[in-house]
Amino acid sequence: MSYQLHYWPTIQGRGEFIRLALEAAGAPYVDVARGTGAGQGTRAMMRYFNDQDLARPPFACPFLVDGKRVIAQTAAILMYLGPRLGLVGASEIDRLWAHQIQLTIADFITEAHDVHHPLGVGLYYEDQKPESLRRAAEFRAERLPKFMAWFEAIVERNPRNAGSEFPHLIGGRLSYVDLSLFQVVAGLQYAFPKASRKAFRKTPQVLAVHAGVQAHKRVAAYLASERRIAFNVEGIFRHYPELDG
Amino acid sequence: MSYQLHYWPTIQGRGEFIRLALEAAGAPYVDVARGTGAGQGTRAMMRYFNDQDLARPPFACPFLVDGKRVIAQTAAILMYLGPRLGLVGASEIDRLWAHQIQLTIADFITEAHDVHHPLGVGLYYEDQKPESLRRAAEFRAERLPKFMAWFEAIVERNPRNAGSEFPHLIGGRLSYVDLSLFQVVAGLQYAFPKASRKAFRKTPQVLAVHAGVQAHKRVAAYLASERRIAFNVEGIFRHYPELDG
Repeated sequence: MSYQLHYWPTIQGRGEFIRLALEAAGAPYVDVARGTGAGQGTRAMMRYFNDQDLARPPFACPFLVDGKRVIAQTAAILMYLGPRLGLVGASEIDRLWAHQIQLTIADFITEAHDVHHPLGVGLYYEDQKPESLRRAAEFRAERLPKFMAWFEAIVERNPRNAGSEFPHLIGGRLSYVDLSLFQVVAGLQYAFPKASRKAFRKTPQVLAVHAGVQAHKRVAAYLASERRIAFNVEGIFRHYPELDG
Repeated sequence: MSYQLHYWPTIQGRGEFIRLALEAAGAPYVDVARGTGAGQGTRAMMRYFNDQDLARPPFACPFLVDGKRVIAQTAAILMYLGPRLGLVGASEIDRLWAHQIQLTIADFITEAHDVHHPLGVGLYYEDQKPESLRRAAEFRAERLPKFMAWFEAIVERNPRNAGSEFPHLIGGRLSYVDLSLFQVVAGLQYAFPKASRKAFRKTPQVLAVHAGVQAHKRVAAYLASERRIAFNVEGIFRHYPELDG
């Protein structure tokens, strides 16, 4: 049976981390809110938020429906899918490490988002532009390099990377955290082309993970397809040149 | 062997969610950065961040050291400790649900923190006061009630709460998410006494979880001890009256 992914239909956003895992594994799934068939569309997603009989309701999207199971929180969804899609190692401690990396990616994503929404999600970017400019300066100078240095250190210290064509964050083969780091790099290159180019000069291993994922056959096919939504100024990563320094 | 908790020694912060779990379970642990003995103190914690030989380094504290394992990210630590401390159910799907709730608490915590730091952590609150006032208004009016309503719904829909003395977020007995929700309520009552009182009027079940945890024998002993650091204006939850509306 297909997995059902529920997420906003016009942005990559947090849903993209799930899409990439499903696509890289070649798993059958329905991107529900983007569908036009019966039981599809945004309304089908919203029904879960309004369903008073759902014992374990999602707080927000993305959420995954797998049979009777409804699972929200991007990192939790990936932790659930990881073993099922062959995108994480077998041991508890390897899975926990992968998840720990994913949670740190989630923290970074939140900060990348808050650059253009420092005063909250209730206001448009245009209504918090001076504040965004101030927050962006700290993001470019401190936060972006700090997070990237940590990812770089992890790849460098992964003993399984010696002699492999492309490095990985964990273990000797593709995992969902590699896919997520790819997405972070792609998002930064779109939103902060100047600041990220500068940061990536110090993180060649991070760029190598990105390149490896991009060259992955199923990922490449996905990126070239219409299923990949283009970056835009509605998502997490937004290109506002004034925020790029 | 004792668990080692590494966290800033003068604040509750994110470390408190771990402390509460260890305390409620009566587990042996050392709060390393607060210690004055050999191999303790903040320097002992910082050593992990600077250790180039650590294959799986923490990005930030809190982190837990269990023998050779070093585990960071509050929610991941609780997921690891949960089964070991008897603070979560046995099935994969129950553990995932507990973790999903914990991740949503983590999201809320981040928002509660950003109320007084909307422009980032590199500036003092005093340097971002007008921005904090604007962000606080949205937090009080939208975000706080929205998150609390979700927690309330979860407790209401937990089928195991019928007839029990104190309700729980999941299952029929205390879990680490109950402890974390307790901490959220306590933090809100300290930081936003007016706004939270208003919000809690609509969430009696959330208050009942808080009361149940507070009455728990080991938790009560902990709260009365010197091990419980008092709330202060260095942590996540800060009482700045002007932000309380």
